[in-house]
Amino acid sequence: MTNHLDINADMGEGFGAWRIGGDIDDAIMALISSANVATGFHAGDPSTMTHSLQEARRHHVAVGAHPGFRDLVGFGRRHIAAAPDELVSDVLYQLGALRELAAREGMAIRHLKLHGALYMHAARDADFATELCDALLQVDAKLPVYCLAGSELDRVAEIAGIQRVHEFYADRDYDDSGSIVFVRQVARRDPDAVADKVLRAAQQGVVETLSGKTLAVRFDSVCLHSDSPGALEMLTAIRRRLDDEGIVLRSPGAG
Amino acid sequence: MTNHLDINADMGEGFGAWRIGGDIDDAIMALISSANVATGFHAGDPSTMTHSLQEARRHHVAVGAHPGFRDLVGFGRRHIAAAPDELVSDVLYQLGALRELAAREGMAIRHLKLHGALYMHAARDADFATELCDALLQVDAKLPVYCLAGSELDRVAEIAGIQRVHEFYADRDYDDSGSIVFVRQVARRDPDAVADKVLRAAQQGVVETLSGKTLAVRFDSVCLHSDSPGALEMLTAIRRRLDDEGIVLRSPGAG
Amino acid sequence: MTNHLDINADMGEGFGAWRIGGDIDDAIMALISSANVATGFHAGDPSTMTHSLQEARRHHVAVGAHPGFRDLVGFGRRHIAAAPDELVSDVLYQLGALRELAAREGMAIRHLKLHGALYMHAARDADFATELCDALLQVDAKLPVYCLAGSELDRVAEIAGIQRVHEFYADRDYDDSGSIVFVRQVARRDPDAVADKVLRAAQQGVVETLSGKTLAVRFDSVCLHSDSPGALEMLTAIRRRLDDEGIVLRSPGAG
Amino acid sequence: MTNHLDINADMGEGFGAWRIGGDIDDAIMALISSANVATGFHAGDPSTMTHSLQEARRHHVAVGAHPGFRDLVGFGRRHIAAAPDELVSDVLYQLGALRELAAREGMAIRHLKLHGALYMHAARDADFATELCDALLQVDAKLPVYCLAGSELDRVAEIAGIQRVHEFYADRDYDDSGSIVFVRQVARRDPDAVADKVLRAAQQGVVETLSGKTLAVRFDSVCLHSDSPGALEMLTAIRRRLDDEGIVLRSPGAG
Repeated sequence: MTNHLDINADMGEGFGAWRIGGDIDDAIMALISSANVATGFHAGDPSTMTHSLQEARRHHVAVGAHPGFRDLVGFGRRHIAAAPDELVSDVLYQLGALRELAAREGMAIRHLKLHGALYMHAARDADFATELCDALLQVDAKLPVYCLAGSELDRVAEIAGIQRVHEFYADRDYDDSGSIVFVRQVARRDPDAVADKVLRAAQQGVVETLSGKTLAVRFDSVCLHSDSPGALEMLTAIRRRLDDEGIVLRSPGAG
Repeated sequence: MTNHLDINADMGEGFGAWRIGGDIDDAIMALISSANVATGFHAGDPSTMTHSLQEARRHHVAVGAHPGFRDLVGFGRRHIAAAPDELVSDVLYQLGALRELAAREGMAIRHLKLHGALYMHAARDADFATELCDALLQVDAKLPVYCLAGSELDRVAEIAGIQRVHEFYADRDYDDSGSIVFVRQVARRDPDAVADKVLRAAQQGVVETLSGKTLAVRFDSVCLHSDSPGALEMLTAIRRRLDDEGIVLRSPGAG
Repeated sequence: MTNHLDINADMGEGFGAWRIGGDIDDAIMALISSANVATGFHAGDPSTMTHSLQEARRHHVAVGAHPGFRDLVGFGRRHIAAAPDELVSDVLYQLGALRELAAREGMAIRHLKLHGALYMHAARDADFATELCDALLQVDAKLPVYCLAGSELDRVAEIAGIQRVHEFYADRDYDDSGSIVFVRQVARRDPDAVADKVLRAAQQGVVETLSGKTLAVRFDSVCLHSDSPGALEMLTAIRRRLDDEGIVLRSPGAG
Repeated sequence: MTNHLDINADMGEGFGAWRIGGDIDDAIMALISSANVATGFHAGDPSTMTHSLQEARRHHVAVGAHPGFRDLVGFGRRHIAAAPDELVSDVLYQLGALRELAAREGMAIRHLKLHGALYMHAARDADFATELCDALLQVDAKLPVYCLAGSELDRVAEIAGIQRVHEFYADRDYDDSGSIVFVRQVARRDPDAVADKVLRAAQQGVVETLSGKTLAVRFDSVCLHSDSPGALEMLTAIRRRLDDEGIVLRSPGAG
């Protein structure tokens, strides 16, 4: 039975004066163990990235790079038809940018998690997944990669010997196939129900699907989207429940 | 008397399908010792940067980061009123981006040279120069910085113990005060006259000003703008003359 | 004594999923007579612009173009050193873009108000102000221009016979010279005090300065920044007070 | 038998100091009847657009708007998964922007031709094509639209009563199905052979396919890509041949 758990959330989704969602980043940072920091192409300017790094350090949160498609207006949620090598260079560029800003703070980058449509692209496109893993082996073979279990990136990373981090989505519904149910408008959820769901998944390895079935789930990290309505309340409830059960936060990349 | 010299040029000034000037980068790369590679904000996408890195490796050219203002349309030549800390984060972001792409190629970044209006801003603004040097001491204290002799960045970097690289401008005219004469439209020059000028500066430490006076110059590197008309012809002439005199190319950052 | 007044506010300061300030645009639209719609360079994508146009039509609000510097990350608040003709073309581009989107809604553009640092640039730079007015005479000589009283744009527009709209800043303090007191962080104000200030200015033509003096003010429109803290509360209080006094809203450009 | 013909080419594919292809725009402008001017999202800044307008006026060339996906780095050649209404607003925005700049020059916009991947998207996506035509009926029902014969846009525009302009591709090969043969790298062609091909298509309504078959073609305009290798030489040869045959240039939108 697990006595530690990782909670990851997307952080630094600003761009200069702009914000996606509200301004609750700093409050969220106090409640998670892994921060996926936006690295500039879909969100995140160097100053915002630096702020996220400093907040992460203050709260002993492991920082990962969260690169996306070059698409500010679409916030990286729209697929762009681009060649694998171009996208891999885009990922390395963003990873290195965050790494340098982290170095100034005396910090290291602990993981990589692709954002939005790029995350989905790596899940489906074997060429991109393969070229990405090849590149990661060159620059940082020990960097854990958050990815969808069973996806192309997952498969290729395993072959490459790259540490994979599988996620459980606290604020999304599962269907009977184990897939996340996509909704255009994410609904506000009861924080305690979300906390129950996370605890059950962590301790018993199961989740109740939308149809009421019980499904086995295996994961290394709980993902909570910082722009979900009520993100802070859900995180607070999850943390309280984990504390009650003596489960401590720990990031996969932290050791 | 010197038997080695550095020649630096700006490389990778493309952005996807776009180009500044012509497409003579690869030819120029064969003739220089230090390449200042554009890092994305004023020019340079990750794929173009990667191409420049590979060409530099092929020709044993030392690669430096060449970050500029975030201003594609203005090619980084227009001053933008931004806070020092924001600009320093912008520089680190770009430096790290190139460093990561270089790491994939098994290469290191050997120097930093700011681009265009940002180069001039660092020459004049003590706050920016100071914060930049502070940051460089954190991330890479041994990274040589190309800068204008006598400028704020030069002064601050010296105090900080950062290696400074002063430049001689092969394709620009000097006035009697030792300043470069600014012209809106850079004229095509006689390649052999430019080569003479470089050799005289390297061997005798003097340059003839626009008014005909002889001025003492001290420098560590010869800068030739890759978008000057006839850049390739000038470089070819310079190299031939240096070869004749037994002066070999060597980059300050190369050791 | 006036029985009508214009209230203008900046609208549509979004960019795709991004927002500046909160999401109170639609509520503000119900309380103003003139909407300055961001036109894409500092904020405002075509879909957001269209939404603002539709809301304006629903509330019978006159729509003006609100172009700024090409600077998303800086939200158009940073000066960029650009040539007058380049900036004038930038303004026309943005004006026409909004005009076309308005045409689809069966609407016309009723005024022009420059944004942020570009507004200030037109106030100070006679060349830009002159070239701008020349261009406006070519494309739409009857388009009213919101501008700072006594500024270069004001002076040049008067000579050109362009209708000028002077503003009273409801949510800012005046100093004894009649200038707005710049503050880095705009404070939340008592809505009733702001309403008092507006009414007094409208009826008596005076404002109390920060030092307590009474200053004469002449204006054609009350500006309230939609991103000021408590913007909605201030507007509600102002509107209630105006209603009580029988002062109705009317936009200068509406006829 | 035809005694007039339209030749269209993409113009103004610059962005500030940047260029796609070479700098032969002004020379091409003297040889065509319709200029598709890039409108900012994939290429074309307001100053470059203004230059193209002025050159078009000087050479009595009809100007059309040439909007593309918001994708500078990809030059609008990559498909972006975006909603139809968002894309239609993007097109209107760009159309209006050019229209306003044209108004300053005393010129009108004579046609619309989508660029690159957006052109192909309108050819395939009925929703986008339909929403686009609906919008065009609102803003400018008489604006001719260049489109692929038999495409979705072609079909929908016909129903909407919008004038369609079909193109013959002078610098591309046709296959036996009448489709253009896509090649990654466009080869340089013999200018006289291209001129022969255009003349035969114009006078006899046929083209020889890559396999040697003779195929019937119907078209209203000859398209020549300004970034094809040897564009200027091909245009010169075409024009000479047309002159010899007494065929004069005339743009569909010009009356």
